[in-house]
Amino acid sequence: MALSKFNLFHYQLNAVSCFLNRQLPKSARCLSTVLVPGEASGPSVKTTVPGPKSRQMIADLDKIQFAGSVFYFTDYKNSLGNYVVDADGNSILDVFSQISSLPLGYNHPDMHKVVQDPDNQIAFINRPALGIFPAQGWPEKLTNSLLSVAPKGHTQVNTMACGSCSNENAFKAAFMWYRNKQRGGASISDEENSSCLVNRAPGSTPFTIMSFKGSFHGQTLGCLTTTHSRSIFKLDFPALDWPIASFPRYKYPLEDHVKENEAEDRRCLAEVEEQFEIYNKAGKFVAGVVVEPIQAEGGDVHASPEFFQQLQRIIKKNGAALILDEVQTGGGATGKYWCHEHFNLPDPADFVTFSKKMLTGGFYSLPEFRPQQGLKIFNTWMGDPSKVLLLEKVVQVVKRDNLLKLVELSGKKLMDGLKDLSNRFPQHMKNNVRGIGTFCAFDLTSPQKRDEAFFRLQQHGVQSGPCGEQTIRLRPFLVFQPKHADIFLDVLEKVLKEIQTP
Amino acid sequence: MALSKFNLFHYQLNAVSCFLNRQLPKSARCLSTVLVPGEASGPSVKTTVPGPKSRQMIADLDKIQFAGSVFYFTDYKNSLGNYVVDADGNSILDVFSQISSLPLGYNHPDMHKVVQDPDNQIAFINRPALGIFPAQGWPEKLTNSLLSVAPKGHTQVNTMACGSCSNENAFKAAFMWYRNKQRGGASISDEENSSCLVNRAPGSTPFTIMSFKGSFHGQTLGCLTTTHSRSIFKLDFPALDWPIASFPRYKYPLEDHVKENEAEDRRCLAEVEEQFEIYNKAGKFVAGVVVEPIQAEGGDVHASPEFFQQLQRIIKKNGAALILDEVQTGGGATGKYWCHEHFNLPDPADFVTFSKKMLTGGFYSLPEFRPQQGLKIFNTWMGDPSKVLLLEKVVQVVKRDNLLKLVELSGKKLMDGLKDLSNRFPQHMKNNVRGIGTFCAFDLTSPQKRDEAFFRLQQHGVQSGPCGEQTIRLRPFLVFQPKHADIFLDVLEKVLKEIQTP
Repeated sequence: MALSKFNLFHYQLNAVSCFLNRQLPKSARCLSTVLVPGEASGPSVKTTVPGPKSRQMIADLDKIQFAGSVFYFTDYKNSLGNYVVDADGNSILDVFSQISSLPLGYNHPDMHKVVQDPDNQIAFINRPALGIFPAQGWPEKLTNSLLSVAPKGHTQVNTMACGSCSNENAFKAAFMWYRNKQRGGASISDEENSSCLVNRAPGSTPFTIMSFKGSFHGQTLGCLTTTHSRSIFKLDFPALDWPIASFPRYKYPLEDHVKENEAEDRRCLAEVEEQFEIYNKAGKFVAGVVVEPIQAEGGDVHASPEFFQQLQRIIKKNGAALILDEVQTGGGATGKYWCHEHFNLPDPADFVTFSKKMLTGGFYSLPEFRPQQGLKIFNTWMGDPSKVLLLEKVVQVVKRDNLLKLVELSGKKLMDGLKDLSNRFPQHMKNNVRGIGTFCAFDLTSPQKRDEAFFRLQQHGVQSGPCGEQTIRLRPFLVFQPKHADIFLDVLEKVLKEIQTP
Repeated sequence: MALSKFNLFHYQLNAVSCFLNRQLPKSARCLSTVLVPGEASGPSVKTTVPGPKSRQMIADLDKIQFAGSVFYFTDYKNSLGNYVVDADGNSILDVFSQISSLPLGYNHPDMHKVVQDPDNQIAFINRPALGIFPAQGWPEKLTNSLLSVAPKGHTQVNTMACGSCSNENAFKAAFMWYRNKQRGGASISDEENSSCLVNRAPGSTPFTIMSFKGSFHGQTLGCLTTTHSRSIFKLDFPALDWPIASFPRYKYPLEDHVKENEAEDRRCLAEVEEQFEIYNKAGKFVAGVVVEPIQAEGGDVHASPEFFQQLQRIIKKNGAALILDEVQTGGGATGKYWCHEHFNLPDPADFVTFSKKMLTGGFYSLPEFRPQQGLKIFNTWMGDPSKVLLLEKVVQVVKRDNLLKLVELSGKKLMDGLKDLSNRFPQHMKNNVRGIGTFCAFDLTSPQKRDEAFFRLQQHGVQSGPCGEQTIRLRPFLVFQPKHADIFLDVLEKVLKEIQTP
């Protein structure tokens, strides 16, 4: 279905907005600037989504691997900025950004420059075993990219290939640190060295990592033990016996439920204390607590800064490490590089893990968590320098184009619009619109309605992301502007008017 | 130290060899052809390795992360073919190939072409969430690369980012398959769905993966449970209670110990049977057995084709899956794409996992191991299409330049030379030289001598790889020619004459 009237309207709106924006202060220029030249002015949908070409390709792929999770095939060559073009030529406003992983949208001109540079091409084709043979200049590259945006108090960083490996290795670093504290300077015994080879104590430790109900930390077996968002991820797989506590589930609107939500914080924190006591007493010592600043896959579940402040105090009191999993929240979508910077924690987090929008996986850790020996936080590739070259440029563009400010402005527009719609369509939308920056989400009033809304958004040329039971999450690119928010909100309004599910 | 006399000798040797090779049949042209134009004619070492510049960079990196495992910093721009150039300008014959991970050597001209192609650059900068939004043409790319060299009987492949994730996901696929067999078509209960969310039965399974003493399968917690090569990898980390059997340890020379080694096979296979019985009886059902065709990190430990044939029969009899970990052995270094193709197995392996030289991680699996639902063998990126573009070209070059034949010829040269040296230097080298293709190794007579030999090889401009207790492994590139084998063997002879360790 063509959206030509719709497009025309937005073209006009853009023209007016460009004129008005000349009056804006410098900090808000990102509102008006064309951030990705040549970008479409609105979605344009010609077929159902997925269309016949995508459906054929899904059938082709399914001969090679299970292809049941594919939405559609994509024409990356013709995708640009905030718009993804699918194999059937539909141009779709993408507010899901490859599961929140592509920072600057499609074919950003500065990303092209990185890969066109012959010096950089060396890194794209000579992938090193980074832990043994890094390229000269590698410390500077880390300094210019990951360390230039490090969370407060962090000077140490390790790179990894993906989010799961980042969390797994942060867990391992926490275990080593905890064991070294237990040893108190004693040297490693022969028995430790031999017993660990066959998975036995004392060399193999009974240590645990505490996690929260509803969380998602990845899909390798260690990470999966700490993941509790949806049974599909976990069913049929073995898991370790590690402690689990409740994560706050607030009543909305927040301002009307201050007391209840404070009580909810206390309830969950008491569970954390209790789990520490149970597991430590049983000798299954809790070396770390892993937590998302916002539970993303679990349905964009937010907790208060006070919850995280208290959580850090409890963890410290129990001699464990705080592992903040910023794989999805990190990289700028909350208007800061790290979501937990909104929490005003008393101390820096012990670990901050990342991947997705940072393009490389890895983790920051405080100096006391440095390994004492080589090869322990290790694997063949230890990440990929070509991703760090891309990240270095992303960091420059974010600064140059003032994109964190843009996230804040576009986020406000999104939040205001979503709240307005939730007031106007209470039969479909719950009144728990929530978000920081453009990291926003809203619930439909039933899982079936969520599925319908998600599908209808796609048919109208908007790619959103489902999560939790009945949530739609927005994960736009860092080049998502208020004009894109307007388009999204208009389409959502249309969808809310169309919903048939009772 | 300059090796100019040495270089001159090899230059002359090359000239003679080029002349002679005009008479060679087409299949052996790879012997004489200049595979990487402009490649150095021999190593050239000016400083100690690592030199002062590398040492300064190691100190710089150590401010950011533990840098104790770094050998030296590398000048990838000036590295070419089989020669790596370090930050101090030393040109080093690299027979370790970034822990066996770079297939065609440094800056191969065909690899440059891949990244210079503007169409390919799209894939380098628009990394998709492959499980949801693959690029149009993706099934064809998989067909032209991974499936074109698939092990016999394999038509199904999944991509992953690294070797550990490949093994973890193969384990998961085996668990799902095993559980579905148990269910016998019954549907999934509510109790299964709710219990798995908190890591409890029946949704979380008590299933196990059997592994072998001495093995290495990666360093995430699931993989680490199956890794038993060295305590450094495992100490201080928790592990699951999974079965472990012995892997054959043969007496060399093989031809003089046929009976003992057959008995060793039987001993180990009996342990496999026994572990199946113990764990299955205890309800800790063994869903799969993971094994390397050659235990690489563990010291290049070989087992006979008969061992693997019997192992497959036992696994099948016990209703489990055979997971062949070809992360290090795969990709051509044995003269075939998959080492297990040398074993003449009665049936295709259920899973073959890969990474390293394949540039992308992933696994092949037989159709019966396909997941029944989406999102279970899943993560954000599911690998990286830009690596598959590079692999597609590697596969073409391997075929065009007849590199598997070259591996066979260079491997024979290496093996003959190593055996000769082990006969001439029995005070330093054990008589257990072993290898398939260029995937070769030899033991020194003590760990200390291994360390000295490794160090002296480096000082003379040869980068080898240590593994096991007292082993040096060779993992040259696929463009390693007999002339490079000559250079390596001459340097090794010099080193064996120099060794001081008693």
